[in-house]
Amino acid sequence: MKARVHITLKQGVLDPQGKAIASALHHMGFAGVEGVRQGKFLELDLKSTDRAAAEKEVRTMCERLLANTVIEDYAVELVK
Amino acid sequence: MKARVHITLKQGVLDPQGKAIASALHHMGFAGVEGVRQGKFLELDLKSTDRAAAEKEVRTMCERLLANTVIEDYAVELVK
Repeated sequence: MKARVHITLKQGVLDPQGKAIASALHHMGFAGVEGVRQGKFLELDLKSTDRAAAEKEVRTMCERLLANTVIEDYAVELVK
Repeated sequence: MKARVHITLKQGVLDPQGKAIASALHHMGFAGVEGVRQGKFLELDLKSTDRAAAEKEVRTMCERLLANTVIEDYAVELVK
């Protein structure tokens, strides 16, 4: 089973990397960009075939390692 | 309109960061993890309200700045 995890900065947390990208896009002439937020995206291959157990395990991984829950949100999605 | 962009390493391109995460998860006791691939995730706020034009513009941004198309794939998805 595969898990797709999105890790994004919480609303209100400054995102200097996103600001830098937005600024670069403006300089390149993409005036229609109002804002950019950058996050991380992880794809995990899991042995587990039990959907509920897999989701629970990935959430534990997020809490303990993958995300910094002080400043980041995460979303877990299972595929296949 | 919002665009969600996923930037991932092409298949066959080594992903040392993903390997480091997988290794860390194994050391923490998550033996069910067979592999991890790390990518980037961007959320763009766009002024445009024309879906087709927005998608074309974001694809151009990916080709010119956001993705390194030699080693990375990108996927653009428009929301709202």
